[in-house]
Amino acid sequence: MILLRRLLGDVLRERRREQGRTLREVSSAARVSLGYLSEVERGQKEASSELLGSICEALDVPMSEVMREVSDNLALAEAVSTVEQLEPFAPAAPMQVTNLAA
Amino acid sequence: MILLRRLLGDVLRERRREQGRTLREVSSAARVSLGYLSEVERGQKEASSELLGSICEALDVPMSEVMREVSDNLALAEAVSTVEQLEPFAPAAPMQVTNLAA
Repeated sequence: MILLRRLLGDVLRERRREQGRTLREVSSAARVSLGYLSEVERGQKEASSELLGSICEALDVPMSEVMREVSDNLALAEAVSTVEQLEPFAPAAPMQVTNLAA
Repeated sequence: MILLRRLLGDVLRERRREQGRTLREVSSAARVSLGYLSEVERGQKEASSELLGSICEALDVPMSEVMREVSDNLALAEAVSTVEQLEPFAPAAPMQVTNLAA
């Protein structure tokens, strides 16, 4: 199953890194703990709506922009998942080679 | 502060109603409790990523489509909030009308 918190975490981390800011700087600006922000970025913890708002504010990026990027990435992940369901990438059985010369 | 869970709840409720389905039907299909779905729709409870996935599946709508709609509504809410901060809609003081004929 595609998990929203993973895609959201990726976008938040990318935005922070683009700005050349550390976890410590952003967590302090957003008034959330460094450990919490780190877990959110790694998709290990759900961000509450309030804390997501604070993190976006600390990053100075509209929440709509973050969620737009998340929905684009979701659409891509859904497409990949559909293709995988249609054509499972199971390793093919090794071809049987008959040595006709033997 | 604009809360993601409120906008998300609105979109989920609208999608369910468009399909003419009851809370009971969708909560049962999504294997979540009726009370939980109702609270999520009213923006009173954060949906975990797993349960959001189940609800979207039960509604047969891609999560990316739901989040796209949420981000559009977020952008609108942000714009309204910016305008309100620029021009507070405080009630104007009643105009002083001087009766010149008195």
